[in-house]
Amino acid sequence: MTSNAIRICETGLRDGLQNERHCLSAEERASLARLLVAAGHRHIEAGAFVREDRVPQMAGSAEVLQRVHGLAARFTVLVPNLAGWRAAEGAGATSVAVFAAASESFSQKNTNGSTAEVLARSREVAAACRQHGATLRGYVSTITHCPFEGRVAVQDVVRVAEALFDMGCEEVSLGETTGRAVPRDVREVLSACAVTLPLEKLALHAHDTYGMAVANVTAALEAGLRSFDSSLGGLGGCPFAPGAAGNIATEDLLHLLHGHGCDTGIDADAAVRVALAAEKLLGHELPGRVLAAARRRN
Amino acid sequence: MTSNAIRICETGLRDGLQNERHCLSAEERASLARLLVAAGHRHIEAGAFVREDRVPQMAGSAEVLQRVHGLAARFTVLVPNLAGWRAAEGAGATSVAVFAAASESFSQKNTNGSTAEVLARSREVAAACRQHGATLRGYVSTITHCPFEGRVAVQDVVRVAEALFDMGCEEVSLGETTGRAVPRDVREVLSACAVTLPLEKLALHAHDTYGMAVANVTAALEAGLRSFDSSLGGLGGCPFAPGAAGNIATEDLLHLLHGHGCDTGIDADAAVRVALAAEKLLGHELPGRVLAAARRRN
Repeated sequence: MTSNAIRICETGLRDGLQNERHCLSAEERASLARLLVAAGHRHIEAGAFVREDRVPQMAGSAEVLQRVHGLAARFTVLVPNLAGWRAAEGAGATSVAVFAAASESFSQKNTNGSTAEVLARSREVAAACRQHGATLRGYVSTITHCPFEGRVAVQDVVRVAEALFDMGCEEVSLGETTGRAVPRDVREVLSACAVTLPLEKLALHAHDTYGMAVANVTAALEAGLRSFDSSLGGLGGCPFAPGAAGNIATEDLLHLLHGHGCDTGIDADAAVRVALAAEKLLGHELPGRVLAAARRRN
Repeated sequence: MTSNAIRICETGLRDGLQNERHCLSAEERASLARLLVAAGHRHIEAGAFVREDRVPQMAGSAEVLQRVHGLAARFTVLVPNLAGWRAAEGAGATSVAVFAAASESFSQKNTNGSTAEVLARSREVAAACRQHGATLRGYVSTITHCPFEGRVAVQDVVRVAEALFDMGCEEVSLGETTGRAVPRDVREVLSACAVTLPLEKLALHAHDTYGMAVANVTAALEAGLRSFDSSLGGLGGCPFAPGAAGNIATEDLLHLLHGHGCDTGIDADAAVRVALAAEKLLGHELPGRVLAAARRRN
């Protein structure tokens, strides 16, 4: 891997769709996954094994995995606990994401447990994953601000990320959940992380609620990060962070990265076509800027 | 002025409205100007003295100036030639903006003349302004990309900016017209400018077509710029740059700057209320992100 190679994890089909009113069928989600792979995506968050009564948008995640089986990409599914892991394992999942929040209040409201309790659940999932040879990815949410507590201490972020690496995560994605952070905040938390954590194994998961996501990714890129989460068309939000918008739009991220000479392996025009296809399935426009420019040109 | 003091020029009432289908009346525009001043804005682009058959949105700019007379802010009007200057002067204008493009093709299509011809017209306006003691501001458009030619050479940008300073501009605003630029491009052109031009007298005018505006402003801020143009709600576009979106939204710019500890003198919540008022007058939503978050919270 050369230094200008960037890894992108496309989270639209999980973090994105999870915040849509309208539920897409497993085949509709699989059809988007096929377009993503054809565009060059190699890592896709494809679903979640969570309670279907709480997150109906993720129902049928097992079927999505079946339908994308054999495609040339890694498909990761979110798993909150051992029950979720058993379902994921039964569906043939080989890549699993676990999570915890740096903020205690967010942890309680989002996952009904303290950060320590949520980490303990994730540790159980991690142990089971290791037994079955599944790849593990970790998420730390609220890395700079919490919707309930305000500013989050950088040492809390570092502590949770360390715990996730300790349980076997090969990469930890730092989630800027509220979208309030500015580049200075991102630099500050990454600089604290760099003391004990491997920067090359950290990703940034930036929400665009206040329009800061591209600037925050730029700051992270300059700090040495080489992995970013994004969401097709900027799809998404967060049901537990009031007013939050989606992840950085994949197409906007590609504009930034390709303009800086980075190699993502993803075709920018094809990425726009996936987002247009998602708009058609969802029946409304998505907020990505590059996408909006494409609509205006058409 | 301390080093964290930032000047903002609010361009929504000219660069923004000029690209709206619906024409606001002079009183509607003046009402927005009053809200802007109440929010803390001290520099507002209030109109243009151009051909009303070509730019009907700017008709009545003289009346706007009358209606905002006495408010505690500088009101600048765009003037393309001596005829425009005479009208502006008759309306009591005391601050005038002139312009030229770094790209020859853009100059021909946007202003029907070569860059040299457009600079000559601006020089005539500048001489008249000096005689009447009016303050002069300059715009260089297409500072990194031209919609017709692609990449623009940095020396062409420097040359046009130098010409604008030479004719008496107290500040030159660098217009990233297409929105294609990424932070690296902004750093490159500013670094070329810094050789012969006073950075403290340069502003960045960034369009957000591809979602890069906040990141580009961040790059300029880090390079030492202390003056930025923005547009309430992200209002705008460019009739001569197909698919272009508006300027960086003022509210998003404020989120970035205040988050970095900069002093703008503008109340962020009041700025959101101005944008909401503009949405009501225009009858549609504006694209700013902070504004969208405020709508979701309401």
